[in-house]
Amino acid sequence: MRSKLLLLILAVSTAAMFVWNLQLQAQSSGADRLRKLEAEFERATAERGLDGFMSYFNDDSADLPSGANIVFGRDNIRKELEPWGADVSLTWKPVKAEMAASGDLGYTFGNFVFKAKDKDGKLVSHYGKYATVWKKQPDGSWKVAFDMGNSSPAPR
Amino acid sequence: MRSKLLLLILAVSTAAMFVWNLQLQAQSSGADRLRKLEAEFERATAERGLDGFMSYFNDDSADLPSGANIVFGRDNIRKELEPWGADVSLTWKPVKAEMAASGDLGYTFGNFVFKAKDKDGKLVSHYGKYATVWKKQPDGSWKVAFDMGNSSPAPR
Repeated sequence: MRSKLLLLILAVSTAAMFVWNLQLQAQSSGADRLRKLEAEFERATAERGLDGFMSYFNDDSADLPSGANIVFGRDNIRKELEPWGADVSLTWKPVKAEMAASGDLGYTFGNFVFKAKDKDGKLVSHYGKYATVWKKQPDGSWKVAFDMGNSSPAPR
Repeated sequence: MRSKLLLLILAVSTAAMFVWNLQLQAQSSGADRLRKLEAEFERATAERGLDGFMSYFNDDSADLPSGANIVFGRDNIRKELEPWGADVSLTWKPVKAEMAASGDLGYTFGNFVFKAKDKDGKLVSHYGKYATVWKKQPDGSWKVAFDMGNSSPAPR
């Protein structure tokens, strides 16, 4: 009876340490995962414009656009971002990325450059900062929980 | 031997389910925890002004202020927010709160009202949105991982 109890304690400890270790692994590799995700997000946007950008949003996503109210859901966010002309370029660079120990929620923030033609056809660069919280979905894919931006001074 | 193996499997499964269940509990109560934290943060700010506000930041915190570059660390963020006059009032209301399954990282976003006197001594209200990512510290307290804001239209 006593050996069974010891075995049980050992098994419970081993299982708990196993789960704990998985969490630590998730945390240390989590920031890399988020940076890779951001690079994929940026590539999809460069290759497919607004369609590529929107492929990382779902019905639970929110956008917090500067000068406007909070927008909820993929369809509404898409409407807010239209028209997204063929001349538009949106590039960004994360400055920090951090993942929860559970590996299901993480954030990145950094700087972006948005280039678009003004009404006179002149290409204008807008500089800003962004923050994105990423949420792992039941199917294993990652979507934007929320995205926010504001303006920055032009780099000197 | 076979019964020991069964016992071991049962013990490992039970322990894994126990840890998993703890995580689910953390997630469902996590949003409430974050909303409570935001209420404490707001109360500290109302009662102690900039000192109260800054008590939720540490050296790892970042601020992403509209129109300026990313600011890292409590001391630099404080400098950015000074002067914070006695007439300043900052109130906010979270619209959404979500916690990672591990209960160590969560976010809130919502709307704020910042009131301060202009140079003519007239009290002016500025409306905006904010997002905060919260990170649990080794001592169990919660600090701001990053805080970001941008402007919103005045409510009608």
